[in-house]
Amino acid sequence: MAKDGDVKLIGAWPSPFVMRPRIALNLKGVEYEFLEEKFGAKSDLLLRSNPVHKKIPVLLHADRPVCESLVIVQYVDDAWPSSGPSILPSDPYDRATARFWAAYIDEKWFPSMTGIAKAQGEEAKKAALDQVAEGLSLLEDAFGKISKGKPFFGGDTVGFLDIALGCLLGWLRVTEKMNGVKLLDEAKVPGLAKWAERFCADDAVKGVMPETDKLAEFAKLIMAKFKAAPSPQ
Amino acid sequence: MAKDGDVKLIGAWPSPFVMRPRIALNLKGVEYEFLEEKFGAKSDLLLRSNPVHKKIPVLLHADRPVCESLVIVQYVDDAWPSSGPSILPSDPYDRATARFWAAYIDEKWFPSMTGIAKAQGEEAKKAALDQVAEGLSLLEDAFGKISKGKPFFGGDTVGFLDIALGCLLGWLRVTEKMNGVKLLDEAKVPGLAKWAERFCADDAVKGVMPETDKLAEFAKLIMAKFKAAPSPQ
Repeated sequence: MAKDGDVKLIGAWPSPFVMRPRIALNLKGVEYEFLEEKFGAKSDLLLRSNPVHKKIPVLLHADRPVCESLVIVQYVDDAWPSSGPSILPSDPYDRATARFWAAYIDEKWFPSMTGIAKAQGEEAKKAALDQVAEGLSLLEDAFGKISKGKPFFGGDTVGFLDIALGCLLGWLRVTEKMNGVKLLDEAKVPGLAKWAERFCADDAVKGVMPETDKLAEFAKLIMAKFKAAPSPQ
Repeated sequence: MAKDGDVKLIGAWPSPFVMRPRIALNLKGVEYEFLEEKFGAKSDLLLRSNPVHKKIPVLLHADRPVCESLVIVQYVDDAWPSSGPSILPSDPYDRATARFWAAYIDEKWFPSMTGIAKAQGEEAKKAALDQVAEGLSLLEDAFGKISKGKPFFGGDTVGFLDIALGCLLGWLRVTEKMNGVKLLDEAKVPGLAKWAERFCADDAVKGVMPETDKLAEFAKLIMAKFKAAPSPQ
């Protein structure tokens, strides 16, 4: 571990946002200690390391905290520039494109997916599912333009946008399973469907992508907890 | 203009997010054509250049669009690396810190400021004002740690985080004026209050920062329009 200057990651296995820095560290071949938070509790180390948001993931590099999943991924790329592949594209325009779509995923697409579970009534649920499918259609188009026939958004290797979107695949599959629908439908988004298979089979990814059944069990636990808790309003 | 490869910016003068790329381009000494959108309308060029969000600002560099204000600022830094000062810090940890706080400003602090105008009743308004003040207190603390006695978050010159926060100062002043309060209070956030004066007086900034009175007039126009429009729910 010493060679990498003492790297720790505070996280939890079901979090897609924790998976992002884990894949970045794997790509760079950086060894790290995984400090798993207990579900429903926050450790003193977490509260001390991320006092603003009090959220995982937090990367500790020689005891200095870095927070926010995509900020950490960019930090890993910057801090270990000569280890493994570049995570961000080297061309300025390609970097901007990757950052644009990563922001779209976090600000629009993923919230539309979490909106499915929150939707009240069949009509609202259908609208939410349609919104997720529309987002996938935009991302299918983006994949074609960005990858230009190569296996990943990042070209020949997993890159920034692969990590940003790919880490949400586990929860997309859980959403499909719980709602009895196919969202990553090979007939509608063939490029993304094949990309998802390649992404999940990648050496940097396969050890940290949770099994869908295990994640679905966890999702049921959370939903039961939410329903049992008093409403915040 | 030819030396910079044909640079255009689609925007509007009252938008704090449009101000961000303008300052970045000024810092780099890049000449650009400002294509002003009409209030309440969206040009074909805007719709074509940013079909996902249909929002300003959009930078057109040799006809290729770059969208989202902070993505554009990073693009400007990447695309003109040897012109003017570096906008992002060169140290990986400092870059991560700047990105963390910029995300905090856009995802938490600025929404809390726009929440003041939306708050229903005096109690809700007071809670919203307190939230903005708490955010400024966090940013005051961050300014001390990041600037380390230098004039800007970016050190001796305006940098990424200066741009991210500084462009919101015009709307902060309008909020103060319309609510009869002092939020950037020298007694409570002395570092930020002095930083704000320096930022607004900077050569890259002073030509694009709107006058508070003119911005307040515009704000009244928007609010009248919102009140006249049918409620979205």
